[in-house]
Amino acid sequence: MLAFARERDWEQFHTPKNLSMALAAEAAELMENFLWMTPEDSLQAVNEPGRRTNVENELADVVIYALQFANRTGIDLATAITEKMAQNARKYPVEKARGRSEKYTEL
Amino acid sequence: MLAFARERDWEQFHTPKNLSMALAAEAAELMENFLWMTPEDSLQAVNEPGRRTNVENELADVVIYALQFANRTGIDLATAITEKMAQNARKYPVEKARGRSEKYTEL
Amino acid sequence: MLAFARERDWEQFHTPKNLSMALAAEAAELMENFLWMTPEDSLQAVNEPGRRTNVENELADVVIYALQFANRTGIDLATAITEKMAQNARKYPVEKARGRSEKYTEL
Amino acid sequence: MLAFARERDWEQFHTPKNLSMALAAEAAELMENFLWMTPEDSLQAVNEPGRRTNVENELADVVIYALQFANRTGIDLATAITEKMAQNARKYPVEKARGRSEKYTEL
Repeated sequence: MLAFARERDWEQFHTPKNLSMALAAEAAELMENFLWMTPEDSLQAVNEPGRRTNVENELADVVIYALQFANRTGIDLATAITEKMAQNARKYPVEKARGRSEKYTEL
Repeated sequence: MLAFARERDWEQFHTPKNLSMALAAEAAELMENFLWMTPEDSLQAVNEPGRRTNVENELADVVIYALQFANRTGIDLATAITEKMAQNARKYPVEKARGRSEKYTEL
Repeated sequence: MLAFARERDWEQFHTPKNLSMALAAEAAELMENFLWMTPEDSLQAVNEPGRRTNVENELADVVIYALQFANRTGIDLATAITEKMAQNARKYPVEKARGRSEKYTEL
Repeated sequence: MLAFARERDWEQFHTPKNLSMALAAEAAELMENFLWMTPEDSLQAVNEPGRRTNVENELADVVIYALQFANRTGIDLATAITEKMAQNARKYPVEKARGRSEKYTEL
């Protein structure tokens, strides 16, 4: 990804602001696949051949921009994820959060 | 991540529709850090201590939801990214795209 | 709204790029109220007193930024809406679209 | 707009959850017009003929979904906006906020 951007002299456009916008735009395009469906129907819809290719591409775009953001800002993504999962485990203890979708502030 | 969701009986909420919404919401929160800045200023702002922790957490959330989406839908993320990068290389040949930020349809 | 921005010397920040980011961020915050719910449950949830105030505020923020965007770019919003509704009526004729949520390209 | 949705029997899809997703998706499409530009360049770009039509359509979509959300939830949008502007005036007093883009918690 770094080589891809460098060869095209695109690092000038790849600021944190712009990469976060691109990430948000791709996440919205992924979401658009499921706009008017029930959550259950989305489980089947993701397997329809035409839609699946689009979903794979949009999900890839999301992760590509997330990795470029991490590259550009020097964020160690593995560490950031490990720490966030530990935070989430503290915010949502199993005994309080089981089977509930409320935010931790409402548990 | 799979264990985390299973222990809390959260797989019922983790449909493609809902996970894509959560991903889009976290991407928007990452973006909010840079709302009124110039793109150049966002390069410095990402290093301010308080903001950096928030940025790391929001980026982690984005990737966590992307991985949960891949888990839930059986998408092979590494393959999807490799294929999307190959597509991007065809859409944006170096000689046409160098130093330009236009969409491939306008190059 | 124009007076509010001018008194604070905020017009320098209110470019189309920045206003569209703010609009997208507020739309995501509105959406976050309904993240893990079924669509049906969201009809009741919007009436819970605490949530309703938040939903009203986020919806107001969305429309405030949409109006500021229109002000700043000189877009006549009433005309734009009338024309878009006419386009939608052509894309989604009643006889083809009734009771269906597919995109017009798939009807 | 109410007639448009009713004629197509679309009210079943127009829950707060789904309408907020559609709104967020359209806001992201509006934002995509300005992805890699500087904020200043976006002021000119919005006047390019092809882009302007797209921007007008996406902004119209945003406001259409905001109005449908208000219709469906019984939110009085004029009151919600007036109250939010009053809140904003308290959060951002002119003497503290003039020329500054920080969040009210950082002023």
